Amino acid sequence: MRVTTIHAPRDIRLEERDIPRIEEPTDAIVRVTASCICGSDLWSYRGENKIEPGSPIGHEIVGVVEEVGSEVSSFRPGDFVIAPFVHCDNACPHCRAGITSACVNQGFTVGGQGEYTLVHQADGSLVKTDGMPDDAMIPSLLTLADVMATGWHAAVAAGVRPGSTAVVVGDGAVGLCGVLAAGQLGAERIVAMSRHEPRQKIAGMFGATDIVAERGEEGEQRILDLTDGVGADAVLECVGNDAAMRTAVAIARPGATVGFVGVPHGVELPVGQMFRHNVGLVGGMAPVRTYLPDLLERTLTGAIDPGVVFDMTLPLDDVAEGYRAMDERRAIKVLLRP
Amino acid sequence: MRVTTIHAPRDIRLEERDIPRIEEPTDAIVRVTASCICGSDLWSYRGENKIEPGSPIGHEIVGVVEEVGSEVSSFRPGDFVIAPFVHCDNACPHCRAGITSACVNQGFTVGGQGEYTLVHQADGSLVKTDGMPDDAMIPSLLTLADVMATGWHAAVAAGVRPGSTAVVVGDGAVGLCGVLAAGQLGAERIVAMSRHEPRQKIAGMFGATDIVAERGEEGEQRILDLTDGVGADAVLECVGNDAAMRTAVAIARPGATVGFVGVPHGVELPVGQMFRHNVGLVGGMAPVRTYLPDLLERTLTGAIDPGVVFDMTLPLDDVAEGYRAMDERRAIKVLLRP
Repeated sequence: MRVTTIHAPRDIRLEERDIPRIEEPTDAIVRVTASCICGSDLWSYRGENKIEPGSPIGHEIVGVVEEVGSEVSSFRPGDFVIAPFVHCDNACPHCRAGITSACVNQGFTVGGQGEYTLVHQADGSLVKTDGMPDDAMIPSLLTLADVMATGWHAAVAAGVRPGSTAVVVGDGAVGLCGVLAAGQLGAERIVAMSRHEPRQKIAGMFGATDIVAERGEEGEQRILDLTDGVGADAVLECVGNDAAMRTAVAIARPGATVGFVGVPHGVELPVGQMFRHNVGLVGGMAPVRTYLPDLLERTLTGAIDPGVVFDMTLPLDDVAEGYRAMDERRAIKVLLRP
Repeated sequence: MRVTTIHAPRDIRLEERDIPRIEEPTDAIVRVTASCICGSDLWSYRGENKIEPGSPIGHEIVGVVEEVGSEVSSFRPGDFVIAPFVHCDNACPHCRAGITSACVNQGFTVGGQGEYTLVHQADGSLVKTDGMPDDAMIPSLLTLADVMATGWHAAVAAGVRPGSTAVVVGDGAVGLCGVLAAGQLGAERIVAMSRHEPRQKIAGMFGATDIVAERGEEGEQRILDLTDGVGADAVLECVGNDAAMRTAVAIARPGATVGFVGVPHGVELPVGQMFRHNVGLVGGMAPVRTYLPDLLERTLTGAIDPGVVFDMTLPLDDVAEGYRAMDERRAIKVLLRP
């Protein structure tokens, strides 16, 4: 099968590899019908994460079950499934507490930018649709494997409540999904911090009531001005670098929480400021499986349409161009069709 | 009047100074009937905080109103009051949201280890009792100015709920009050991390169900063993140094929150670990005034008896000995009588 591999920074290849095989009786093999490139893949692409040369890459997929292990009882070949990027048994104490991303039988989708992939703990991890979804639904369903669920986690972690003023730091696909999530959770005012016109436009479609294009201290001042000097009731940190985190903490009102979902890179938390202002930090790797049934329902009923974040679709053969487009910010998020 | 001053590390003096005067019409002057030495005063005593030589010190007091400014309407000379160490108008947006410690008119008790002290925003800050309390109640009432309210804040911030397993890191007076608070909030199992026998004993009186004397990795392993490998539902970080914070994060179950109230000194938050495990951090400087009415009620009805943390009482003249006793851990907390 063809699968995307990374050999070095900016060296993305499509290579022939063996189709994965069932390793444990709880595994399933899924034929990928759509996958995509994640903002977090760009950390590797830009050389900011250590990589093993030749590693398969990609962790967001939807597809059709091809084969199941002997202990998998809830899925059969032919089922259309969404595979959370982090796999779980959905039964351990952490899963039962809702943190499926910390499952004691945790696994990850590997090489999702390919034709087939292995899902561990298939019964716990996968969620299927009734029958084959309409092709037009695929982009939105695909976001549920990571990006929409991650934006949702940011909003939940930040404690967005009806009537809140929520500010979203980061205008990548996760940040945009965070805007959408904040609206669904009842935020009355949603400020998207974004300086890119195409992203500002999607933020608006997703329910942002205000756009702040400034960054750093100037951006922080704008948020304070917008909130009568009080600060935001809830802040969604959807980037993962130090500047974004500092802004997030600075604009949170005393007693507010920063919901953080950007994988931290070089972040030094301003603990003294957090202490003085009683600003909390909650979040982490999104427990995608926990949110999936609810998000699937919202997607199928049309309450949310997160697939809008895909502004470029490419055949898998052009995956390297997809990385370039996202790296150069020519695309927000690239959908790949095998 | 006599007031305690600090001139250099380990140089505590009792000096003659002018009685404070009303500066703003919202001020009150309180004659101190009891004050105490705080764990946070030891940071200055040990040279770990920068000080202005000759500064008055002490921020926890109860006493009798001596004089009020022209705009103070709720208090009059002769009222017995508890003065939160952080003053507030109890009316600004931060106060209305419950974070009175971030009041826009924030002030602090200064030179509380003395005979008189100034309270800013007296109407917002002070809480009075009906008549003069019994002398036996004074220690418990005094804890409400800071230490009991701070332990309470740790438990609230950590999200202690009925049935929780709560772990308290730190066996100073704040940590012990955190044990008491966790019990009041319904924790079923309360683990006090303490290796000092007199403190273990008070922790037991305050409701600790388990004591863990080990520290560092060994202590962390003990907590995991006690929780079937899951970790604590809620962790109260009541120290403020890096080792305590690392332990607190390490023993929190995925999805749990560390409630932190120890003034951070040299803390580098393990943001990667927090992200991977979805361990949150909430807390900061305790909004004492917010909790005071409830805590006063619990104290007056005998539901809590936090004054037990005072295991040494000295006349104000012996304040320097009080600092030595706490520094050398001969005393948990020292009450001073002017």
